[in-house]
Amino acid sequence: MTPTAEPTLTQAVLDSFAGCPGDRLRTVMSSLVRHLHAFASEVKLSEEEWFAGIRFLTEVGQTCDDKRQEFILLSDTLGLSMLVTALNNERPPGCTEATVFGPFFVEKAPEVANGADIAQGAQGEPCYVSGHVRSLDGSPIANAQIDVWQSDEAGFYDVQYAELDQHQARARLHSRADGSFDFRSILAVPYQIPNDGPVGKMLANLARHAWRPAHLHFMIVAPGYERLITHVFRSDGPYLDSDAVFGVRPTLVADWLRHEAGVAPDGTRSDKPFYTLDYAFVLNPASPAA
Amino acid sequence: MTPTAEPTLTQAVLDSFAGCPGDRLRTVMSSLVRHLHAFASEVKLSEEEWFAGIRFLTEVGQTCDDKRQEFILLSDTLGLSMLVTALNNERPPGCTEATVFGPFFVEKAPEVANGADIAQGAQGEPCYVSGHVRSLDGSPIANAQIDVWQSDEAGFYDVQYAELDQHQARARLHSRADGSFDFRSILAVPYQIPNDGPVGKMLANLARHAWRPAHLHFMIVAPGYERLITHVFRSDGPYLDSDAVFGVRPTLVADWLRHEAGVAPDGTRSDKPFYTLDYAFVLNPASPAA
Repeated sequence: MTPTAEPTLTQAVLDSFAGCPGDRLRTVMSSLVRHLHAFASEVKLSEEEWFAGIRFLTEVGQTCDDKRQEFILLSDTLGLSMLVTALNNERPPGCTEATVFGPFFVEKAPEVANGADIAQGAQGEPCYVSGHVRSLDGSPIANAQIDVWQSDEAGFYDVQYAELDQHQARARLHSRADGSFDFRSILAVPYQIPNDGPVGKMLANLARHAWRPAHLHFMIVAPGYERLITHVFRSDGPYLDSDAVFGVRPTLVADWLRHEAGVAPDGTRSDKPFYTLDYAFVLNPASPAA
Repeated sequence: MTPTAEPTLTQAVLDSFAGCPGDRLRTVMSSLVRHLHAFASEVKLSEEEWFAGIRFLTEVGQTCDDKRQEFILLSDTLGLSMLVTALNNERPPGCTEATVFGPFFVEKAPEVANGADIAQGAQGEPCYVSGHVRSLDGSPIANAQIDVWQSDEAGFYDVQYAELDQHQARARLHSRADGSFDFRSILAVPYQIPNDGPVGKMLANLARHAWRPAHLHFMIVAPGYERLITHVFRSDGPYLDSDAVFGVRPTLVADWLRHEAGVAPDGTRSDKPFYTLDYAFVLNPASPAA
């Protein structure tokens, strides 16, 4: 007979996992059930609240399609994504820290050479980005594969425009022999995460905003090193203290310098003011087993 | 700046609820986030496991439609539904205990008189059910509204048959002046919960079966009393110790008696063996405030 009072009911559920052939699955599910039941008991979840939760999760699932992942957004806005990132990316001091991946990465971004304009028509103030990829001991990492992606000045990524038939403000390039790289793009600006779905309603009910501070996404891959997925944030913008997805780390905030119209870093003449960013990425050598 | 290591990250998420105007929402969400983060940290959830979870929840949401609620099934199979039922239906000893509602209730079941055959063509061995509805002090409750529903011998409820244009094995009746009621139906049998979706896959991965022990659903409503949602289970069947949804309570298990062909309780002659069930339901008076 199955007793129903917690903790006996909880134990009955844990006992039902006894035959699970996968040790890890049993461990994960047991912890999940213990915390799920402890949550419901702690707040004495009402039947109406339980059903509101069922309806909410159903709507989150039904908002997902091949262009939108509302469950990742939910995970992001509850800090779970950043927590999982932190748990799985502990690195020695001096290495560039990781942050959330986000939903707007694309597998096959256009390959470009150093110096290219990756905006490809995306609207925004000109921004010249330079950087280095180094190992923890300071040695340059040549030929590192660098994916970069960002929103335009309206706050949207290329993949959010249904009518767009090419990538914009997104590219893949490689570091030179001395570890350096550079490209031209547009200035990163704050934007709101998609808030027209159930997660947006949740944020509104919690009186939370949906803004992310201005940032540029990077994914850097080099043989012999751990993959780095991170952002560089603008030090001069709002929301650094209240990122809707809790992704800001102090070490990832950098100064983006504003320059009046004149000669740009690539030697051309800019008739508008422009910005520059320079940032050094430090990769962690992969463990010998990896 | 938002720190990322638990517990500082967890605290940052809790702090983001500070402006929430609803005290109860803030309490529930804070507890949820604390337990969600504690779960991920306790098992050191990997990024692959996190993404498998995202995909699973998305599939659960997308399996829901107007006839199927896979998130309720998930809640049921993790014991959450029964826990919420138990948390919200604490009653004095002597009252009939509650159990899970299940997904197969229908708002407008056919109204029938006492003695009616509610099977309406559903296949199964004949079963005659009689009962009483009483208050905690033993006094009869007249005119209580009794909803009853069950599966057929194949293990399906009427609403699971897409082609069926009438209700079967489901009815609403009322108790007589002395609190008694009776109807004819079919014998309840064990059945599997829908297991062709993501929850079925989860159960298979956990090496759990999807069976529920044989039971009859009841919802009883009477003015001045707390609503009772419960089952009566067959004492002679399998799965009482391993109900896939953890709904069995010892007090809800009753003997369903088998009789050889002959005179049935309604005075007619049954040329097949038949079953009888007699069960007394005891309602809890509603609190004066209710």
